[in-house]
Amino acid sequence: MSYTAEVMTAIATLREEVCALHAELVRYELVVWTAGNVSARVPGADLMIIKPSGIDYDALTPENMVVTDLYGTPVDGGWGNPELSPSSDTAAHAYVYRHMPEVGGVVHTHSSYATAWAVRGEAIPCVLTMMGDEFGGEIPVGPFALIGDDSIGRGIVETLSGSRSPAVLMQNHGPFTIGGSAKSAVKAAVLCEEVARTVHLSRELGSMIPIDSAHIDSLHDRYQNVYGQ
Amino acid sequence: MSYTAEVMTAIATLREEVCALHAELVRYELVVWTAGNVSARVPGADLMIIKPSGIDYDALTPENMVVTDLYGTPVDGGWGNPELSPSSDTAAHAYVYRHMPEVGGVVHTHSSYATAWAVRGEAIPCVLTMMGDEFGGEIPVGPFALIGDDSIGRGIVETLSGSRSPAVLMQNHGPFTIGGSAKSAVKAAVLCEEVARTVHLSRELGSMIPIDSAHIDSLHDRYQNVYGQ
Amino acid sequence: MSYTAEVMTAIATLREEVCALHAELVRYELVVWTAGNVSARVPGADLMIIKPSGIDYDALTPENMVVTDLYGTPVDGGWGNPELSPSSDTAAHAYVYRHMPEVGGVVHTHSSYATAWAVRGEAIPCVLTMMGDEFGGEIPVGPFALIGDDSIGRGIVETLSGSRSPAVLMQNHGPFTIGGSAKSAVKAAVLCEEVARTVHLSRELGSMIPIDSAHIDSLHDRYQNVYGQ
Amino acid sequence: MSYTAEVMTAIATLREEVCALHAELVRYELVVWTAGNVSARVPGADLMIIKPSGIDYDALTPENMVVTDLYGTPVDGGWGNPELSPSSDTAAHAYVYRHMPEVGGVVHTHSSYATAWAVRGEAIPCVLTMMGDEFGGEIPVGPFALIGDDSIGRGIVETLSGSRSPAVLMQNHGPFTIGGSAKSAVKAAVLCEEVARTVHLSRELGSMIPIDSAHIDSLHDRYQNVYGQ
Repeated sequence: MSYTAEVMTAIATLREEVCALHAELVRYELVVWTAGNVSARVPGADLMIIKPSGIDYDALTPENMVVTDLYGTPVDGGWGNPELSPSSDTAAHAYVYRHMPEVGGVVHTHSSYATAWAVRGEAIPCVLTMMGDEFGGEIPVGPFALIGDDSIGRGIVETLSGSRSPAVLMQNHGPFTIGGSAKSAVKAAVLCEEVARTVHLSRELGSMIPIDSAHIDSLHDRYQNVYGQ
Repeated sequence: MSYTAEVMTAIATLREEVCALHAELVRYELVVWTAGNVSARVPGADLMIIKPSGIDYDALTPENMVVTDLYGTPVDGGWGNPELSPSSDTAAHAYVYRHMPEVGGVVHTHSSYATAWAVRGEAIPCVLTMMGDEFGGEIPVGPFALIGDDSIGRGIVETLSGSRSPAVLMQNHGPFTIGGSAKSAVKAAVLCEEVARTVHLSRELGSMIPIDSAHIDSLHDRYQNVYGQ
Repeated sequence: MSYTAEVMTAIATLREEVCALHAELVRYELVVWTAGNVSARVPGADLMIIKPSGIDYDALTPENMVVTDLYGTPVDGGWGNPELSPSSDTAAHAYVYRHMPEVGGVVHTHSSYATAWAVRGEAIPCVLTMMGDEFGGEIPVGPFALIGDDSIGRGIVETLSGSRSPAVLMQNHGPFTIGGSAKSAVKAAVLCEEVARTVHLSRELGSMIPIDSAHIDSLHDRYQNVYGQ
Repeated sequence: MSYTAEVMTAIATLREEVCALHAELVRYELVVWTAGNVSARVPGADLMIIKPSGIDYDALTPENMVVTDLYGTPVDGGWGNPELSPSSDTAAHAYVYRHMPEVGGVVHTHSSYATAWAVRGEAIPCVLTMMGDEFGGEIPVGPFALIGDDSIGRGIVETLSGSRSPAVLMQNHGPFTIGGSAKSAVKAAVLCEEVARTVHLSRELGSMIPIDSAHIDSLHDRYQNVYGQ
C-alpha cells in the first residue's frame, strides 16, 4: 500500500514526537523499566504510531517507533523497522482511536499514586482547583480487564464517554489518558499522577473540603476555553 | 510610554532573574508541566515581570518573560514579545504588589505537601526550628477563591497581613509566597514545601511536640536579623 | 588454574555488564551509599562476578568487579584486581548459584518500600496486573538470617523454590532477586520496589480489590511466554 | 599566628573535601536551599573547616570554606576569604570537636524523615539489619535546644556519649551526625535518613518485628571490624 506525501511527512514528524514524549514519562517518573507507552494517530490515514514492545526508554529512537493500522497490526510502508513488535498495549490504544474520533493521542502508565487509587477501585475526588481545570470533576475508575482482546479498550472508551476527564484509572492496572494530540495525553498523564498524589497526601491526615460543582464547572470552562497563549 | 534608563536596565536584569528562578521551582520539584510562576516588581516603575502563560519551563527565556502594569495588563515598552499573554495567575500577583508595597517578589506553586494541607483547609503548625526561623509561626490558610477577579489576590493579602509567614496556603488550590525579592519568595516556596512535607510525615505516626511561642519568637528574630553573610 | 578463551571472553563481557547494571540501581534509587550489589554467573565455569565491598558506585569500573568461585572465594585468573574483597553479601549470592542452576544473575538492595514490608514480615499481595505479569503472585518473605554463614542464601533458595516470584523479602533486611541473567535480576529488583510502593500507597487509604488467581495465572503465562520482541 | 606546612597542606586538602561533601547532601536530597552543613577537624591544630553561612550549594568552592578555631571564631591564616561568616551552626560543631576528641567530622541536616521522628521526640527503633550494622541500636533523640549558646552542642555530646549511634535527632530540629572523618559523618547522615524513611514506611502499615539485641551486637561488631576493603 502507498501513502500520500502528506501522510509520509506526518508519519516522520509523529515518530519524532512520540519518541520524544516517552522521555517526559521518564522525567516525571511515571514509568519504570519499559512499563508505559505513548501513541499518536496519523492524520489523514487509518494509522497510529506507538512504542515498540520491551525496549528500554534510553534505546528509543524515531526510527524504532512502530506504525500500525487501527487494529494494532504493524504496517510496512517502507518507513523502516517493520520487524519490531508494537507495545503489548497496542490493542487498547487502537480501540480508542477506532471509537473516539476526536482523540489524537493516548498514554498508558503505571504511575504509583494513580495506580494506588485504581487498586482500591476508587475515583479521585475533585478537591483541587487544578483538577477542576484539567479534569472537570473526579477521575473515574474503569473495569478490571485482561490483556488479550478488546476488553481494556472497551473499558477505557465506556468510562471516558461518560466523563469530562481525559484520564481513567483501570482497576488493579493503572491510568490511561487521552488528548487531541499525543502531547495533550502526556500532559493529562502527568497531571493525573500529580493530583492522585496530592489528594492521597491530603486524605492521609483527615477530611478534605469539597469544591462546589458549580465552581468546578466554572474552572473547567475557563481552562478549556481561555487558558494558554 | 517611555521609561528611564534605570528602569530599562532593571527590567533587563529582572527578566533574567525571573526566568532563572523558574528553574529552581523545577529543581525542587515544586511544579509540573506549566503550573507555577514567579514574578518580580520593577523598582521605580508601576510594572512587574512574570512568566508567560502555558509555556514549558524548558522553553522559558529572559526574552519571553512578560512585562505588565500593576493591574496585569501587558505593557509594550519596546522590550520585546508583547504578543505573549502573561500567566493566568497574573491578577493575583498584581493585587499583591498594589497592596503590599514592601513585596518585591511573588511565587505560586501547587507543590504536593503544601497543597495537601490546603485541601483540608488546615494551617501547618510551627513544630520545627526551621519554621520558627523562616515563618515565625504557623503557615496560615487563605480562603477558597475562584480565578477571574481580585478574590485570590485579596485572600492572599488579607491572610498574610495578619501573619509573620511569607507563605499562605490558598484553600483547595496551593501556596502563594512573598518576599522582598523574587529570590526570597522562591526561598519561601521551597521551605514551605519542605516544612509541609516534614510536618506531614511527623503527624502520620503520632503526636508532635509543640514549640513554645517565646522560643518561636526568639528563633524568628535571630534568623531575620542576624543570619547570613 | 587456566580457563578457555570462551570463559575469558565471557568474564570480560560480564564485568562490563555487571558494572553497568549497578548504575541502574542508582538511577532507580534502590540503593544509597554502597548498600546494594549485582552479580552474574559465568557460563561454562564455576565462577561468578560481583561488586567489590565498600566501593562507591561512582568508582565502580569493569576492572574492579571481583571474580570468585561459587563459594565466594576470589579467584586470580590473571584478570586483574585480585586484591579487592568481594561484596560482604557474596556468600548469599554464591549459595544461590550453587543451588539454583537456572539462575544467571542475583541482585540485593535495601530499597525502601520493599524493605518496609520485610520489617513487618509481610508478603506483598498480588493486586496489580503488573505483579501478575512479573511475579505470578505475591512477593514472599524469607526468614531472619544473620550474615556470616549460609543462612541468608539458604533462606533465599528455600523461599523462592516454592514460588513463581523472582523476588524474596528477607525479614528485617531487604529484597534479593534472581533472573536468568543479571539484567533480568535487576529488572525484578526495580519492579519489586515499584510494586512494593504502589501496594503500600494503596493500602494506606483503604481496602484493596484482590485479583482472581485464575487471572493471575493468565497474566503470568502471557507475560513470560509472549511479551517482548 | 602561623602554622606548619603539614597543617597548611591539611587545610588545603580538607577545604576541597568538605566542599565536595556538600554535593553529597544535595545528591541524596538531605538538604534544601542552604539548610545543612559539613565540617572537618584539622589534624594537628585546634582548627576546623565549615561551610559559610547562607551561601547556595552551587556557589560553594574550596576557597569559600571557612576556617575557625574550636570555638567557632574565624581564623585568618592567609588562606583566603576571611570575610565570610561560618555557618550559623558552627558553635554546635565546635562544641563536639572540643568534647569528643575521636570525632573528625560533623554533619547537620534537616532531612525530612529523620526530622519527622525528631518532631515527635521519638527514637528510631533498630528493626533493620542495616541499622544494626551502622548504628548498633536505635537512633536516639537529643533535647530541644535553641541556637545562640552551647546548648545544641551539649545536647549532641550528652546524647551520643551514651550510644553507639553516630546520629542524634535533635528534638523539633533535625539530625546531627559524627564520624572519624567528614566522609564518615556524611555516610551516617545518608544512612540516618534512609533508615528513618524505611522504618517510617514500615510502621505506617502495621507492627514491626524487633531484632534481638544479641543479633544487633553481632551485626554491629562485624560491620565495624570486618566490613570494607
